[in-house]
Amino acid sequence: MFADKYMERVIRTKSHLCVGLDPILDKFPSVLLERAEKMYGKTPEGAGYAIFEFNKLIIDTIADKVPVVKPQLAYYEKYDHFGVAAFWQTVEYAQKRGLLVIADAKRGDIGTTSQAYAEAFYKSTEDEWMSSVAVDAVTVNPYLGSDGLDPFVDLSSGNDKGTIILVKTSNPSSGELQDQIIENNGKCISELVCDYINSCSNPIGKYGFSDVGAVIGATYAKDLARFREILPNSLFLVPGIGYQGGDIKLLEAAFNEKGLGAIISCTRAINYAYQTVGVSEEEAKDSILKAVDSFNQSINSVLIGAGKYFIDEL
Amino acid sequence: MFADKYMERVIRTKSHLCVGLDPILDKFPSVLLERAEKMYGKTPEGAGYAIFEFNKLIIDTIADKVPVVKPQLAYYEKYDHFGVAAFWQTVEYAQKRGLLVIADAKRGDIGTTSQAYAEAFYKSTEDEWMSSVAVDAVTVNPYLGSDGLDPFVDLSSGNDKGTIILVKTSNPSSGELQDQIIENNGKCISELVCDYINSCSNPIGKYGFSDVGAVIGATYAKDLARFREILPNSLFLVPGIGYQGGDIKLLEAAFNEKGLGAIISCTRAINYAYQTVGVSEEEAKDSILKAVDSFNQSINSVLIGAGKYFIDEL
Repeated sequence: MFADKYMERVIRTKSHLCVGLDPILDKFPSVLLERAEKMYGKTPEGAGYAIFEFNKLIIDTIADKVPVVKPQLAYYEKYDHFGVAAFWQTVEYAQKRGLLVIADAKRGDIGTTSQAYAEAFYKSTEDEWMSSVAVDAVTVNPYLGSDGLDPFVDLSSGNDKGTIILVKTSNPSSGELQDQIIENNGKCISELVCDYINSCSNPIGKYGFSDVGAVIGATYAKDLARFREILPNSLFLVPGIGYQGGDIKLLEAAFNEKGLGAIISCTRAINYAYQTVGVSEEEAKDSILKAVDSFNQSINSVLIGAGKYFIDEL
Repeated sequence: MFADKYMERVIRTKSHLCVGLDPILDKFPSVLLERAEKMYGKTPEGAGYAIFEFNKLIIDTIADKVPVVKPQLAYYEKYDHFGVAAFWQTVEYAQKRGLLVIADAKRGDIGTTSQAYAEAFYKSTEDEWMSSVAVDAVTVNPYLGSDGLDPFVDLSSGNDKGTIILVKTSNPSSGELQDQIIENNGKCISELVCDYINSCSNPIGKYGFSDVGAVIGATYAKDLARFREILPNSLFLVPGIGYQGGDIKLLEAAFNEKGLGAIISCTRAINYAYQTVGVSEEEAKDSILKAVDSFNQSINSVLIGAGKYFIDEL
């Protein structure tokens, strides 16, 4: 199960942190970009090279410090198939270093097409033309309803994969649709998505979580406790700390009473933790390491403060 | 403007048909797959080769018969970066043959990430590492609200691109979220998305349409007239005829009183119009051509029947 594999890594690293991997070239150490330009020119191929090099730098630095990384597909797709090649190279490299990989893809379509997306990310043994390199989990958009979600949930089940469905996202306008209360029902749209998640009959793993998770933004701290109550058996992917301004102190509500179940995602404040693009690669690594250590410590302190730190007992 | 470019092609081809390009390898003519396997083995690279070859066959057949094609990204992403390379090759090839290309990607994310997606599909002149090959329009998912949509709308504006937002999708479970009526409001979720579309201040082109369109499934025929009334200046991308069972006779409601504004999308009934994968490539072309001619004739007959066929006067 994805959920159990995730939890085993949490216990090993004593970390609930997910490092996002959003490559933004002009924030990269300039030495790295210069090397890429020398080799390929300022081309999508050069960008793909630089992205994989920078991701390796981050992964080498944090592989023993966190359970999971989360590349965001948009930043790879900017460079056409060269960027997508860098994405899949990153997936393989991270997994070899013991990390799980959540593809932040927010895919979702009609049933037959969602099936194709699920196979693209989880892979399928039924199509001999496909590669076998697969992510461990993928984020999915629920706007099309259950027949757009089922293929992901069904293919992940029994396949060690996770499906993480957008419930309440971290961005300022997320409430425009997600918070709307439904007439004669009392529930809001994102709570209907929770009903779908709870209706999935996927098994519950040994730490209490199923392979169907939810995205709940850290920026809406008051919602965290409510969704934790509604979805007791779902891992939460919680973006929004760091750059987006979510308050770490309020995150304890995303965890259950045992201090488990929230994947706290942070991207820019770690990827680009150094002060200037003039840093050497070693200096960049040092800054990234310090940032990860600091976020890990902050999150664990919050759990200790809330009386929810039991990780050493697992 | 995308809308004007689209309409000019409608007038030239006398067609409102959009040919979807959803490559499904085991439906391809077997001669083509055998060639791919001989060259690359059963590998993602072989799949990418076969996909582009098949798409060229379709495009060569229909380039003068329809205004636009619509590749669905999921079917390309199944084959990693080789599939994505075939997608971009297809985009360039179709455009060289005079077709517009709608990327059916259904992307959508928080603002900064939607900006990266918009650049991935529309391209940006501000990033020198990117290629310049861009699609003409992209489908976008509204679940994250306006800040996830704005980057697409803003980048398309003044850039000859179209943003086509999911309003009411064609799949059986689309109503689970999209049809929910909002408390104390009377509107449903998909109507809130229409409000967003109408709030965009993008200019209206010379045929009465803006560059912000809507996906409205043909399978919910009773909704077509209602959405046409709510969104008088939006092009509708209407999937769901053919394989999904939408009734062509009811499609006239998606057009305005001048018989304009609906992009009727059909995929499998055209891509795989031949009876058996044992066909030669020439036989496949013949079947595809017959299917396109037949759909064009059906759609125009419906418009004639509804007193909405004025295309020869434009």
